Amino acid sequence: VRNDTVASAGEHALIERVRERAGAPPVWVTVGIGDDAAVVEPERGASIVVTTDTLVEGVHFRRDWTPAGAVGHKALAVSLSDLAAMGATPRASLLSLALPADLPLADFDALVEAFVALANRWGAPLVGGNLTRTTGPLVAGSTAFGSVRARRLMRRSGGRPGDEMYLTGAIGAAAAGLATLQAGVDRATLSGNEADAVQRYERPEARLRCGTGIARARAASACIDLSDGLADAVRQIAQASGTGAVVLADALPLHPAVRTWAEREHGDAARLAITGGEDYELLFAVRPRQRRAFLTAARRCSGLPLTLIGKLTAEPEVLLERNGTAEPLGAGFTHF
Amino acid sequence: VRNDTVASAGEHALIERVRERAGAPPVWVTVGIGDDAAVVEPERGASIVVTTDTLVEGVHFRRDWTPAGAVGHKALAVSLSDLAAMGATPRASLLSLALPADLPLADFDALVEAFVALANRWGAPLVGGNLTRTTGPLVAGSTAFGSVRARRLMRRSGGRPGDEMYLTGAIGAAAAGLATLQAGVDRATLSGNEADAVQRYERPEARLRCGTGIARARAASACIDLSDGLADAVRQIAQASGTGAVVLADALPLHPAVRTWAEREHGDAARLAITGGEDYELLFAVRPRQRRAFLTAARRCSGLPLTLIGKLTAEPEVLLERNGTAEPLGAGFTHF
Repeated sequence: VRNDTVASAGEHALIERVRERAGAPPVWVTVGIGDDAAVVEPERGASIVVTTDTLVEGVHFRRDWTPAGAVGHKALAVSLSDLAAMGATPRASLLSLALPADLPLADFDALVEAFVALANRWGAPLVGGNLTRTTGPLVAGSTAFGSVRARRLMRRSGGRPGDEMYLTGAIGAAAAGLATLQAGVDRATLSGNEADAVQRYERPEARLRCGTGIARARAASACIDLSDGLADAVRQIAQASGTGAVVLADALPLHPAVRTWAEREHGDAARLAITGGEDYELLFAVRPRQRRAFLTAARRCSGLPLTLIGKLTAEPEVLLERNGTAEPLGAGFTHF
Repeated sequence: VRNDTVASAGEHALIERVRERAGAPPVWVTVGIGDDAAVVEPERGASIVVTTDTLVEGVHFRRDWTPAGAVGHKALAVSLSDLAAMGATPRASLLSLALPADLPLADFDALVEAFVALANRWGAPLVGGNLTRTTGPLVAGSTAFGSVRARRLMRRSGGRPGDEMYLTGAIGAAAAGLATLQAGVDRATLSGNEADAVQRYERPEARLRCGTGIARARAASACIDLSDGLADAVRQIAQASGTGAVVLADALPLHPAVRTWAEREHGDAARLAITGGEDYELLFAVRPRQRRAFLTAARRCSGLPLTLIGKLTAEPEVLLERNGTAEPLGAGFTHF
């Protein structure tokens, strides 16, 4: 079986396999895979938005649980989510892999194919990257580039006291999906909601239509994605904007799988959903006088619901209000 | 001692340490470290050049041999070298780290400081990146962005039969430096040449002045950097250009430490220098009628010598000519 691993294929053959799967680049890519660097033409009048993320086997995924295609998809999706949060339109991507010698070539191919499929779907062709071996866990890194007109850029820091906070989709799906996998539940026996939660954990979708649509309408004062959970996102927006925040527990759109999970674990569903990471939803801050423009622009989110979950406040605390009392919102997922 | 590791510091504190060390970004950086993504203003009329590289502990360096500062320096230098080979001027950089929990905080700081020092020296401020933990070896990834006017861009594929090949600096230094470290020679007892070779292995200098200077003069038909050794570089230029090549062994500028090493190992100095990787010199192809313009532009290389080492040929073979006979040039360093 040595024939079937990345080590036996060799570096040049692996690069060739990536190049074949990436296909011909679009016109704005002057130099794609295979030179010292890639060359991309900037969009006239736009700023360049850049972000990078890394998935590490044993930390962000397990090779025995996670299909290689999910690793490739998610490696890029998390970076595209950062572009969405800035209001940027994707333009190009890079893939960087540190490969254990025993990684099956079929897994390498599946990882690259899923990355490329997502990249092409969002107009961010794979234009380069790096392959190296490692004696440790598989590491998959992505860099994504986007473009945005300066006046449409959404930062974390634009919020003001009184701004309303709106959230895309539902929260807790990824954490519930991970918990389902950790509980060792057979995938074939999952309920529809649980299967959807696992899908959202493994193959998150960056909210690009929503991010760019609302940026174009200039209807949000700040935006962040939920990579490290809602609690972290609210805290980051509040901190960057110099405000506090109140989140209304009753308003939170919990993914249905969170309730199943909370029942199984005798846990607090809202708390699990708030602190669980990796949902990759977007959180917007919106001035009250922009509410109408925001809700109109939200139609560009292609059916994705947007929920009012609370407000930024002049008081510096970041609170969760439920049953008439306020408690600290708490911290999010941390990587250390 | 748990207080002194990256695990005990926590993610937000580590990001804060990076931000402090990166300092205030220049005017073309609209958003630096600390938002979902960085935002950089493109240079008017220029293309964007992007490249990424990864150093893995146990593959590219050993933590017990290599000072953390050298890892940070080299992580960026290898990407800057790719920009140099395209003729691009650096504009911004990203640093991505997968950190073992036991990494001393002092090593983390030293790595970041060396990365930032090199980044600032070449006008490529650190604008973002990613930190994650790992259960395996330390992984340091860099992404570098540059800009170049389209007509000045140097690719690998522009060579033609009859073009002369010019090489910056001397080759074999990095391989001799690595061999010196591998032989366990005490650093304090190294000769000047050996110490220089170790320095070139650990802290290579991207040939940016030379790359951008010659690109500006439009004096080279093709260019590549020597990340995987001279043999690989010549083969890549020939292959991309649809030519063969002849390298003259007698003309090769060998680093003096290569001869010491060859004597110690009873090896073939030229062969060691040709196949040894990581020199990060530049190899140019130059039309004979451009020779004068090239040598004039080479004055911008700040004293770095340029040596004529051979020619591209119509015959497809890639050969080394020495003592009146031709032998295959051979393969370069491969990562698998």
